[in-house]
Amino acid sequence: FYRNSPLWYDKTMKLIRKDMKTKIGRPPGTLITEEAGGPWVQECRLYEYDPSSCEDYEIELFSDLSRLKQQGSVSWLNVTGLTDGRILEWIGREFDIHPLVLEDIQNTGQRPKIDDYGDYLFITCRMLSWNEPRRSIESEQVSFLLGTNFLISFQERPGDVFDIIRNRIAEGKGRIRSHGADYLMYALMDAVVDHYYLIVEELQSIYEELEERILRERPQNGVQLMHTLRTEVVTLRRAVWPLRDIMNQIRKGENSLITQTTEVFFRDVSDHIAQVVEADELLREMLSGVLDYYQSAVSNDMNAVMKVLTIIATIFIPLTFIAGVYGMNFHWMPELLWKWGYPAVLGLMAAVAVYLIIFFRKKKWL
Amino acid sequence: FYRNSPLWYDKTMKLIRKDMKTKIGRPPGTLITEEAGGPWVQECRLYEYDPSSCEDYEIELFSDLSRLKQQGSVSWLNVTGLTDGRILEWIGREFDIHPLVLEDIQNTGQRPKIDDYGDYLFITCRMLSWNEPRRSIESEQVSFLLGTNFLISFQERPGDVFDIIRNRIAEGKGRIRSHGADYLMYALMDAVVDHYYLIVEELQSIYEELEERILRERPQNGVQLMHTLRTEVVTLRRAVWPLRDIMNQIRKGENSLITQTTEVFFRDVSDHIAQVVEADELLREMLSGVLDYYQSAVSNDMNAVMKVLTIIATIFIPLTFIAGVYGMNFHWMPELLWKWGYPAVLGLMAAVAVYLIIFFRKKKWL
Amino acid sequence: FYRNSPLWYDKTMKLIRKDMKTKIGRPPGTLITEEAGGPWVQECRLYEYDPSSCEDYEIELFSDLSRLKQQGSVSWLNVTGLTDGRILEWIGREFDIHPLVLEDIQNTGQRPKIDDYGDYLFITCRMLSWNEPRRSIESEQVSFLLGTNFLISFQERPGDVFDIIRNRIAEGKGRIRSHGADYLMYALMDAVVDHYYLIVEELQSIYEELEERILRERPQNGVQLMHTLRTEVVTLRRAVWPLRDIMNQIRKGENSLITQTTEVFFRDVSDHIAQVVEADELLREMLSGVLDYYQSAVSNDMNAVMKVLTIIATIFIPLTFIAGVYGMNFHWMPELLWKWGYPAVLGLMAAVAVYLIIFFRKKKWL
Amino acid sequence: FYRNSPLWYDKTMKLIRKDMKTKIGRPPGTLITEEAGGPWVQECRLYEYDPSSCEDYEIELFSDLSRLKQQGSVSWLNVTGLTDGRILEWIGREFDIHPLVLEDIQNTGQRPKIDDYGDYLFITCRMLSWNEPRRSIESEQVSFLLGTNFLISFQERPGDVFDIIRNRIAEGKGRIRSHGADYLMYALMDAVVDHYYLIVEELQSIYEELEERILRERPQNGVQLMHTLRTEVVTLRRAVWPLRDIMNQIRKGENSLITQTTEVFFRDVSDHIAQVVEADELLREMLSGVLDYYQSAVSNDMNAVMKVLTIIATIFIPLTFIAGVYGMNFHWMPELLWKWGYPAVLGLMAAVAVYLIIFFRKKKWL
Amino acid sequence: FYRNSPLWYDKTMKLIRKDMKTKIGRPPGTLITEEAGGPWVQECRLYEYDPSSCEDYEIELFSDLSRLKQQGSVSWLNVTGLTDGRILEWIGREFDIHPLVLEDIQNTGQRPKIDDYGDYLFITCRMLSWNEPRRSIESEQVSFLLGTNFLISFQERPGDVFDIIRNRIAEGKGRIRSHGADYLMYALMDAVVDHYYLIVEELQSIYEELEERILRERPQNGVQLMHTLRTEVVTLRRAVWPLRDIMNQIRKGENSLITQTTEVFFRDVSDHIAQVVEADELLREMLSGVLDYYQSAVSNDMNAVMKVLTIIATIFIPLTFIAGVYGMNFHWMPELLWKWGYPAVLGLMAAVAVYLIIFFRKKKWL
Repeated sequence: FYRNSPLWYDKTMKLIRKDMKTKIGRPPGTLITEEAGGPWVQECRLYEYDPSSCEDYEIELFSDLSRLKQQGSVSWLNVTGLTDGRILEWIGREFDIHPLVLEDIQNTGQRPKIDDYGDYLFITCRMLSWNEPRRSIESEQVSFLLGTNFLISFQERPGDVFDIIRNRIAEGKGRIRSHGADYLMYALMDAVVDHYYLIVEELQSIYEELEERILRERPQNGVQLMHTLRTEVVTLRRAVWPLRDIMNQIRKGENSLITQTTEVFFRDVSDHIAQVVEADELLREMLSGVLDYYQSAVSNDMNAVMKVLTIIATIFIPLTFIAGVYGMNFHWMPELLWKWGYPAVLGLMAAVAVYLIIFFRKKKWL
Repeated sequence: FYRNSPLWYDKTMKLIRKDMKTKIGRPPGTLITEEAGGPWVQECRLYEYDPSSCEDYEIELFSDLSRLKQQGSVSWLNVTGLTDGRILEWIGREFDIHPLVLEDIQNTGQRPKIDDYGDYLFITCRMLSWNEPRRSIESEQVSFLLGTNFLISFQERPGDVFDIIRNRIAEGKGRIRSHGADYLMYALMDAVVDHYYLIVEELQSIYEELEERILRERPQNGVQLMHTLRTEVVTLRRAVWPLRDIMNQIRKGENSLITQTTEVFFRDVSDHIAQVVEADELLREMLSGVLDYYQSAVSNDMNAVMKVLTIIATIFIPLTFIAGVYGMNFHWMPELLWKWGYPAVLGLMAAVAVYLIIFFRKKKWL
Repeated sequence: FYRNSPLWYDKTMKLIRKDMKTKIGRPPGTLITEEAGGPWVQECRLYEYDPSSCEDYEIELFSDLSRLKQQGSVSWLNVTGLTDGRILEWIGREFDIHPLVLEDIQNTGQRPKIDDYGDYLFITCRMLSWNEPRRSIESEQVSFLLGTNFLISFQERPGDVFDIIRNRIAEGKGRIRSHGADYLMYALMDAVVDHYYLIVEELQSIYEELEERILRERPQNGVQLMHTLRTEVVTLRRAVWPLRDIMNQIRKGENSLITQTTEVFFRDVSDHIAQVVEADELLREMLSGVLDYYQSAVSNDMNAVMKVLTIIATIFIPLTFIAGVYGMNFHWMPELLWKWGYPAVLGLMAAVAVYLIIFFRKKKWL
Repeated sequence: FYRNSPLWYDKTMKLIRKDMKTKIGRPPGTLITEEAGGPWVQECRLYEYDPSSCEDYEIELFSDLSRLKQQGSVSWLNVTGLTDGRILEWIGREFDIHPLVLEDIQNTGQRPKIDDYGDYLFITCRMLSWNEPRRSIESEQVSFLLGTNFLISFQERPGDVFDIIRNRIAEGKGRIRSHGADYLMYALMDAVVDHYYLIVEELQSIYEELEERILRERPQNGVQLMHTLRTEVVTLRRAVWPLRDIMNQIRKGENSLITQTTEVFFRDVSDHIAQVVEADELLREMLSGVLDYYQSAVSNDMNAVMKVLTIIATIFIPLTFIAGVYGMNFHWMPELLWKWGYPAVLGLMAAVAVYLIIFFRKKKWL
Repeated sequence: FYRNSPLWYDKTMKLIRKDMKTKIGRPPGTLITEEAGGPWVQECRLYEYDPSSCEDYEIELFSDLSRLKQQGSVSWLNVTGLTDGRILEWIGREFDIHPLVLEDIQNTGQRPKIDDYGDYLFITCRMLSWNEPRRSIESEQVSFLLGTNFLISFQERPGDVFDIIRNRIAEGKGRIRSHGADYLMYALMDAVVDHYYLIVEELQSIYEELEERILRERPQNGVQLMHTLRTEVVTLRRAVWPLRDIMNQIRKGENSLITQTTEVFFRDVSDHIAQVVEADELLREMLSGVLDYYQSAVSNDMNAVMKVLTIIATIFIPLTFIAGVYGMNFHWMPELLWKWGYPAVLGLMAAVAVYLIIFFRKKKWL
């Protein structure tokens, strides 16, 4: 678990650091267009559906994007990869998006937040997934632009938690095709939050494993293991906590883009977030409880060892002293000449030892 | 106490985990219908009463449920066991309940909450009971659907804290038969909260027992015992705290389903909850106080032992040195030939020992 | 101080426990009427006064209570002992008091609270007194029912802090006879809060005594003493904190039973409560400061002892080794035959000892 | 620093205790008039000024006080010494002051607060000064009664921080003579708050001195020194924190006695208070940081000593054992007869010692 | 890192101390004019721009400042060095600035704050930069006076973070030239806040370095290093936290000087501040986590050493005792005469040693 995981600040801090240096000095709202050959290929996929039909295209020309503005059906544009700023620029021009919003979409490392621009709603949050080989959380920024009948979602890398939504759209299962773009956004955010449950579960199973090991073996690197786990708990917290404010703002119901029907569903997401927050808090509290326990147990173990060893030493020191006395070379030491001197001294030694053992037993030190 | 109790995360976390994995991927509002042979048989019992009469039936056919909508009397439908989704579906259809509510009823592991849907009020909370053999809290989800003249309650397992209410209805004791469904809900929630007192009491008696043992014996596994108790305290807290928000919302008086007369009674429940919360907080504070005390006492004990042992060693080490000196084999050691050499050295040793003991006494080390 | 005091949860928790078990199962608002021979005799005393006159009666028949409703003068009914529910029932019937209020009056162990029922105001709080022989706080519930021109006060046991008020009424000192029942309630609550000052004072003098002992002697049971004191501090806090909310509600001035003139006086009580809260917080903070100090001092003492002892041992061990070398029985050990061998070795030993002492001194270990 | 300072609860608690016992039992609003010969002589000084002129008198007869009510000029009555209640009574009668206000003025030990009585404003706060010989804070209550064109200030002892204001009035420097009584009150409170800066500065220099000593020498009584300093920090906090509420209330601008022009100046005082609060918090945080540091350093030092000593002992113990073996008196011990036995054993001993030293070095224990 | 850095209170406290003593006694709003030859030369630079043109002058005569009031273009006056009060006085007279504002500009050491005076807006905040040689934060006060079409900025020393803004103005890049003075203020504050990111980054890299060293080597001065870092974290916090209130007040949108267009940009600054605050909190939490880890690791290391050493001692003590026994000089000790006595005893010793080692291994002590 710990061997494969990087130093623990890594996950929690890199997010913040990424856009720091590059940002300074550029005028606000500037987009970066990296040269081709960047790590992630850009991919745009458009889903158009109404209660009766559903289509999806791979968008390759900007002109294809004009479909997004078609009335009558709901359009979902899913943009993967953010290194090329041109598509963002085009969307910004076409839908009159504020440049700072576009910048926030591209600068992954944003704190989850909601911004209401009247015509459209901008939400950014963190999509977490579990990296099993490294046993740590992977975090990725997902942004949503919600308009009257379209939703544009942005993600950093291919691979996401939205496949179940895509299936539901394709197969027309549930309510999704008969509702508007706001319901789609709910569905996507619900999928994101549902995956937080999975993270909680993984963290809990790591916690349980850790607790058991600590209760049983008291591993040397116990504190380090707890640290690594704590980092993950913090990562989760950083993703979930700001979502509560977002949900509060949605539930206040001041925005006309989210219909009252969908608001009820967001209430459900709110509850899930509250549950994840509670579970996260609980994990944190239990971790600190186990840390206390571990330190107390380690120190108890240590004390027990030291006590026994010190007692052994304490028993032998007087005996050695007695032996030392009769090892002295005085000419006139009458005991040395007695026939029973030796056994008597051995007896004395045994008596002293037994007395001390009884004494320690009585004092409950042994 | 501790031997029978499971690892301590068990109770507090399993609740959350249960509905995690199963939920992901399903469209919101989907109900599960397990095959027959699930662990709990479904049982529906209907109580109908007005000030003058009272009847109760075992409901076996869906059509029997149409009685619920009868005017003029109060109906209480008590559903036990939630594994079969069909009855939930029927209720949902008949009373026009939001699918997310039905899902929340079935997915036990909800955070206590209140949702006001205008026509009906949805409340879910946790019913705690004390499992004496395992000496731990058992937690179960109870949900209420309150309409104008009916109340539907859902619980996971047979066996609950409502028998006293059933008696009161049957015997017509107190006000219950002359009030509406809202008063019935008050009575049921009051019963739930009253049982929290019992839990507090059990935890307190465990705490007292623990405190006494720790003050008297300082058991090796003291920290572990405190941990186990702390888990129970946390479990109670997780059930009680969210109830305060529920009560606040009820007391705000914005809902027409709860009459002003009944609101006064809910104020009483609020007070009880405040008392349980306070007792829980107190337990927590006292536990952390006792933990401090325990650790300080253990370390004091240890220090006392080490000090005495070290002092014994320190007294004998110089004596052994003196013996060692006169155990040397130099040819020219005049003291060895003196007649009173041996007694003199013994005297010297005694003098050193006495001096050291007096010195340690003076320094208050002994 | 500590010898006479019971286990420390006693005072703080018994309050809560008392009414737990007995309450469960009874319909809300049920009063208990214990058989005669209960521990406290019931006593009802009625004071009637107006600016010019003042009378007080011992009430023995229910019919006497009808005086309470007389217009023109202020009536104060002081009920002592709550085990017999009949008088409560009579008052409830006569003044149309809500049954839950009556129940709260009888179930001592309430959290201090205020409930405004329009016609009358219900306040319950805790009257603390100092039990000198046990050196601990005694806590008792006092409840007030304030009507337009009457005040009914309930207390658990004879003996209270109201004698000074009784004198002021009897002698017509101060403003009390020229004001209404609300001023009387202010005067009584002021007397209750003034006694909190006494408690604070006692706790402070115990604290000072404790601090001095700890600074001077570091008693073995220091942590235990602090614990006991902390319990008292918590008891005080539990009584005072909820009073702040009560005062806030009174000062909001929404109730017509409390005139504006009297409100100014309640502002004064508020200030006193704020002062007691602050003193309580201060005591708590200082206690935790002294605990830190104690633990640090104990561990410093221990370290000092161990260091000196270890240094003594460390000095003698090399000397003993040298003696051991010349105690070996090799035939060919030229030093043994030298005339100055013995003194030389003694000198070597002295040199080693002196060197080590200087070394330890230099390192500031000694 | 610590030798001259009293036990540390002294300063923070005596304030509260002073008026406790004396208050209980007296009707609210009673003033005390001590016999002459009390510790502080009463002194009343009246300053009357308008933009063009300025006079100050020593008031000796009550009739002189009637000047206070003169229109057209600002009057500042500065009362020093509160033991004689007659002047308070006279002021109360003349200006129709609420008796509780008079009581609060006399009972020094109030929590800083503001009370708005419409006609006049009552503010009480704490004037701190630095007692250099005892190196501790001296605290004194200052109260202000602000009317339309007069200000009455009360202080406990002669000597205050107002001399600069007196000079400014006398010399007509700054704005003070051209503004009303509210500006005067601002000027006085500003002087009080400015002196808090001095206290902060003194505490900081003590802190720096302490930190340096702790970093350098780790004095035995380090924890005690930190305690004493912490008390002073708490004393400051108790004086400053409630002032924030006072300032908030003034800034809300609901009182007609404080003109809008002066309100801007109070905003400045608010900022100063915020700065002092922040500095106080910082001191507190740094103190707890240094405490951590100190404890960690002391324990590191201790560990280092113990490690070296234990290692010395551990090296000599095997050597002593070898010497012990060849000190045995068996007849048949061939090594004893070897010519090179003795040097060989000495060599063995040296080898063991060197090996152990290398081993400990490698393990980084030495 | 630590060698070059001053005592850690330096940076955080000096700010506060600077203006304490000098302020006391002066009437509010007094400016200081130091004699020439003060440490920083005063420099005033005026930038005037409109969408089409841009000029900048070095202001040397007060009369030149009259340009500031010219309509039609935006003027930015950048004042460097605050020791000479004359220019402040001139600005105050010309623009009718409140004297307390001027005082706050000159008394560097203000808490960041915003004051709205209707005609102009006063904001003061802290500009942080990283001093690489000392590896610590440098803090400097920057104040802004925003009027309808001018902005005056004040800084203590030459050298700032505004060069990129100057370039953008000069080259007409981005939106800056086409917006008003409020946008300029946004740009400057954004530059200030963007530099906080750099500070965060530096602190993080120090943290990482520190964490790695602590995980690997456990340096003796680990706690001290953490302290020094914590001071920097506190310094950052003190600069950033009050900014949140400032941003909140700007975003409330009550001021007419900041247009709605610019408000959106301030929202962006708000987000950055939230991110810096979060990073700062994270650093703090991680530091305290690492401190726990460090202390636990150091104590574990220590325990491991002590255990091994104690075990070595414990094994040899019984062996030395056996040797001591056969070193006794009794005449009648039959074992001494046995031919195999010596080897037998050596064997016994080996057996005891092996037994003890096996015993310790079994107990997992070794």
